[in-house]
Amino acid sequence: MADLLVVGSVALDSVETPFGKVQEALGGSATYFSYSASFFTRVRLVAVVGQDFPETHLRLLEDRGVDIGGLQVASGRTFRWTGEYGYDLNEAKTLDTQLNVFAEFRPELDEDRGRVPYLFLANIDPELQLEVLHQMKERPRLVALDTMNFWIQGKRDALRRVLAEVDVVTVNDGEARRLASEPNLIRAARAISAMGPRTVIVKRGEYGALLMTDGALFFVPAYPLESVYDPTGAGDTFAGGFMGYLAARYTAFHDLIRVEP
Amino acid sequence: MADLLVVGSVALDSVETPFGKVQEALGGSATYFSYSASFFTRVRLVAVVGQDFPETHLRLLEDRGVDIGGLQVASGRTFRWTGEYGYDLNEAKTLDTQLNVFAEFRPELDEDRGRVPYLFLANIDPELQLEVLHQMKERPRLVALDTMNFWIQGKRDALRRVLAEVDVVTVNDGEARRLASEPNLIRAARAISAMGPRTVIVKRGEYGALLMTDGALFFVPAYPLESVYDPTGAGDTFAGGFMGYLAARYTAFHDLIRVEP
Repeated sequence: MADLLVVGSVALDSVETPFGKVQEALGGSATYFSYSASFFTRVRLVAVVGQDFPETHLRLLEDRGVDIGGLQVASGRTFRWTGEYGYDLNEAKTLDTQLNVFAEFRPELDEDRGRVPYLFLANIDPELQLEVLHQMKERPRLVALDTMNFWIQGKRDALRRVLAEVDVVTVNDGEARRLASEPNLIRAARAISAMGPRTVIVKRGEYGALLMTDGALFFVPAYPLESVYDPTGAGDTFAGGFMGYLAARYTAFHDLIRVEP
Repeated sequence: MADLLVVGSVALDSVETPFGKVQEALGGSATYFSYSASFFTRVRLVAVVGQDFPETHLRLLEDRGVDIGGLQVASGRTFRWTGEYGYDLNEAKTLDTQLNVFAEFRPELDEDRGRVPYLFLANIDPELQLEVLHQMKERPRLVALDTMNFWIQGKRDALRRVLAEVDVVTVNDGEARRLASEPNLIRAARAISAMGPRTVIVKRGEYGALLMTDGALFFVPAYPLESVYDPTGAGDTFAGGFMGYLAARYTAFHDLIRVEP
């Protein structure tokens, strides 16, 4: 079992779906990732919240054994996201984003956190992702990155720079097509891999995920759910399970497929 | 290896996609099914064509070893279908259907064909499917059925009667939802199974297929294609491979999962 560091957002989400609605629920990419990965390995979270962030949420993460020593508490309000989904739960519509303390977030890794062997750069500004990667004292054994259309469109150059330095990227199918400017998903995955990451994971919602590594393809179906109420955080939860499992076995993905055919 | 009988359509298709167009190409559910299944077992085709049906198409099937002794040649013109696809190749739009000799088609099984152990009722009027099933001298080892929205909407009662008597049904995801009146695919598959077929196969286009048998689920991805020009007949080709393989091993699907875990 090896330490897994995640840098990302911790947020308060207000979400409405055709099946219900929540106000200021615990959310954020780093939250979902940490919670999920904590079932496999020790997770160290680096993020920022405001002074209004509820203690109970901190307890929830601590109870899962997540190290929240790297969670900064800044003066101001916590990052808030408001979104809604229609009956097609694959596509979120953002209604409001209040960056608040997240706008000034500068992740800082101490000596200890700068040497973790597994690093997940959750969905934040690619310039921050790059900054974190360059703060590492040693090259981690495995670095994975998640991103979204907002950065693919708005910060393509910075995103390309960080992509060139990571091992694994996780995107959904729409993001893969946009990032590669290629409608065919297989060709898109290959084009993204050519940008740097040896392993490309394309998340396809209810259809599962595909993984391309060294040009080879592997598919998994999604767990068949009969009732889906709210998909917020599904991709980060998936990434947490994936990275947590690799960190628990102290292996990189390409070792895994070599060792266990 | 055991005989596999298919009853369905043999047609001349005119298809336009964003990538090209064909006029009166060889088509029809029984054609695609036979060609595909012929790679695994002996296929016996029962269908009808008109006097205008090109000899070269008959040669194509004969060259694959397909028994076309049950292909009636009726006076009149062959069944013609005209359709188009947009960039979303998952959905065909029918522009024109000329039933021609197919309108009066009454499949007749002789003594020999009435005893085949594997039977595929391709996508035709469910009343004809039922008629064929009742012409069998012995209950086949395995009977599978394909259908489409046209029959689900227009001949629901007849479809329910034939469904009650088959072992396997193959439908795409939209058809599954419509047949079961249920948006969730897992619940839809369970509801369809409750109508009779022990095994329900849901075809999901580029996302592969799922199979429910005795309540258990099995998923396969689609073969990853980089260039898809025309999906006409994909479902029948898939069914041909599936049934052809089972017939070649002389097994029913539930035996297969029991014998080869």
